[in-house]
Amino acid sequence: PDWKLIEEEGVQKLERQFSFPDFVAAMAFTGKVAALAEAEGHHPALLTEWGKVTVTWWSHKLRGLHRNDFICAARTDALAND
Amino acid sequence: PDWKLIEEEGVQKLERQFSFPDFVAAMAFTGKVAALAEAEGHHPALLTEWGKVTVTWWSHKLRGLHRNDFICAARTDALAND
Repeated sequence: PDWKLIEEEGVQKLERQFSFPDFVAAMAFTGKVAALAEAEGHHPALLTEWGKVTVTWWSHKLRGLHRNDFICAARTDALAND
Repeated sequence: PDWKLIEEEGVQKLERQFSFPDFVAAMAFTGKVAALAEAEGHHPALLTEWGKVTVTWWSHKLRGLHRNDFICAARTDALAND
């Protein structure tokens, strides 16, 4: 499943679920995306569960999507393919 | 806010939101709860956002709450007070 455009409380967001063999692998990916977030100064919602991580990007101040969200989504994909 | 009893798709769960000064502090807590989860062999949903982490415990196989979920909730609180 690729990135989906979702809307929560009137705010458009980009969301994608990534699958992993177990919890440890999921958490390792969460850590990578968290490091990207800090580097970018742009922070997603990261839902970590057993075998999956759901990443949601949106621009809080704009209450919606900005070019930077699409860039961060692409960089998240690159981390998943490491 | 303390632990709330919630129901998602017919499954009872324990959920609590923890607040932090920033994203890095939130991720550090997520990491601690993840380590607890691995040690216990019991895995919550961990939603990490800027300044907050939402922890949700339930027993997947039982599709609801078991004694172990309450124990893990208490251990999560202890990690937050470290």
